[in-house]
Amino acid sequence: MTPRQNRNRDRAGRGIPEATVARLPVYLRALHALQERGVATVSSEELASAAGVNSAKLRKDLSHLGSYGTRGVGYEVEYLVYQISRELGLTQDWAVAIIGVGNLGRALAGYGGFASRGFRVAGLLDADEALVGQEIAGRTVRHIDRLEDVIASGRVSIAVIATPAHAAQKVCDRVVAAGVTSVLNFAPVVLSVPEGVDVRKVDLSIELQILAFHEQRKAGGPGDRRLSGEGPPGPAQYVETVEAG
Amino acid sequence: MTPRQNRNRDRAGRGIPEATVARLPVYLRALHALQERGVATVSSEELASAAGVNSAKLRKDLSHLGSYGTRGVGYEVEYLVYQISRELGLTQDWAVAIIGVGNLGRALAGYGGFASRGFRVAGLLDADEALVGQEIAGRTVRHIDRLEDVIASGRVSIAVIATPAHAAQKVCDRVVAAGVTSVLNFAPVVLSVPEGVDVRKVDLSIELQILAFHEQRKAGGPGDRRLSGEGPPGPAQYVETVEAG
Repeated sequence: MTPRQNRNRDRAGRGIPEATVARLPVYLRALHALQERGVATVSSEELASAAGVNSAKLRKDLSHLGSYGTRGVGYEVEYLVYQISRELGLTQDWAVAIIGVGNLGRALAGYGGFASRGFRVAGLLDADEALVGQEIAGRTVRHIDRLEDVIASGRVSIAVIATPAHAAQKVCDRVVAAGVTSVLNFAPVVLSVPEGVDVRKVDLSIELQILAFHEQRKAGGPGDRRLSGEGPPGPAQYVETVEAG
Repeated sequence: MTPRQNRNRDRAGRGIPEATVARLPVYLRALHALQERGVATVSSEELASAAGVNSAKLRKDLSHLGSYGTRGVGYEVEYLVYQISRELGLTQDWAVAIIGVGNLGRALAGYGGFASRGFRVAGLLDADEALVGQEIAGRTVRHIDRLEDVIASGRVSIAVIATPAHAAQKVCDRVVAAGVTSVLNFAPVVLSVPEGVDVRKVDLSIELQILAFHEQRKAGGPGDRRLSGEGPPGPAQYVETVEAG
């Protein structure tokens, strides 16, 4: 991989760091909660706390959007929602196909957080004949043989793969061949895709492993003592608590 | 939040950056795949590619574990698996309780990736009387009233909250009062916890929002042109593809 490619990996397009892009949805969620409570303006400290980051990071992130707030007042909630939504591309509709409707696919099909962010489930597909024709969250499950039809007729731009591991790469190849350039992968495999296709991988055990790391630290486990030569750390080292995303 | 707290947020314990901790499970998954294929040693480039990061970042991450590989040979797969597992605390068993057994809770209860990483589901709980007594993935669903019993008798150290949003904070307060100090939250709310408790939040729509951002960029959407004054970017800006976690 060339240095230029590495830079592109860390910087999304015109210079918003990838890490900032990853936090924007978290800010957006906190802002929606404030809107629901009728809050019109919010300080960076308050918003940062609600999003589980520190306020300096929040201010820096928002400055990438050209949003600086007003001293002594903070950010206007409604305008900031608009700015972030626009930046993320959520002011338009995205059609999503979910491939694999086991428990996880069903959970995703009924997930309220998709529709409210502009993601519309345009298709549910499975290879299991017993599931084909079933209604899940208001949509009929189609056979995987219809994948290309569903993508074309539903103008699907994002494919969500929730199949078993062994089926995921083949499904991925088919959605990419059908013109899809964004894939959200829940299957426990790393997918290969051609240049120009974005894959985000969700591994439900990764967050648990990160918790295990901290849990071990709290217990003064081997990882902590081995290299540092210090005793078990005091609780003050673990004040960091709410991590978003 | 004080600057000291901020530092603790970004550095986990004795100096492994949080971002590195978050990538260790991704490396581990790639290493397990290599083991299954009978591969004994791996170059940093190969492992980095399998994990979807660049090799310089991988080498730096592994150096925090005191693992530097051998020039011209690379890393010994089995030993690296041991080192990362030990660092993450996966060489011991972790008992997990899943609270809320809707589609998502069921998907989690049956998720193969938990058991293989040392996470043992010690309890499934729900407030719905109709679900209590059902067998899911080999475990019987218990009533939420039994939460404290299940935590104590199962020696649960990590609680997975997969309830609806409105129920999540109350459940969280109860697990914390019962002595749990690590919470994995799938409910669409930010949970408040006392100092010393770690919460990791999984929002299934966040990765979709990040994909939407890139999808919009690829289409030359408003976010891209507005501040830069440039035309739509060429495909070379999007070679970054496989993102893990």
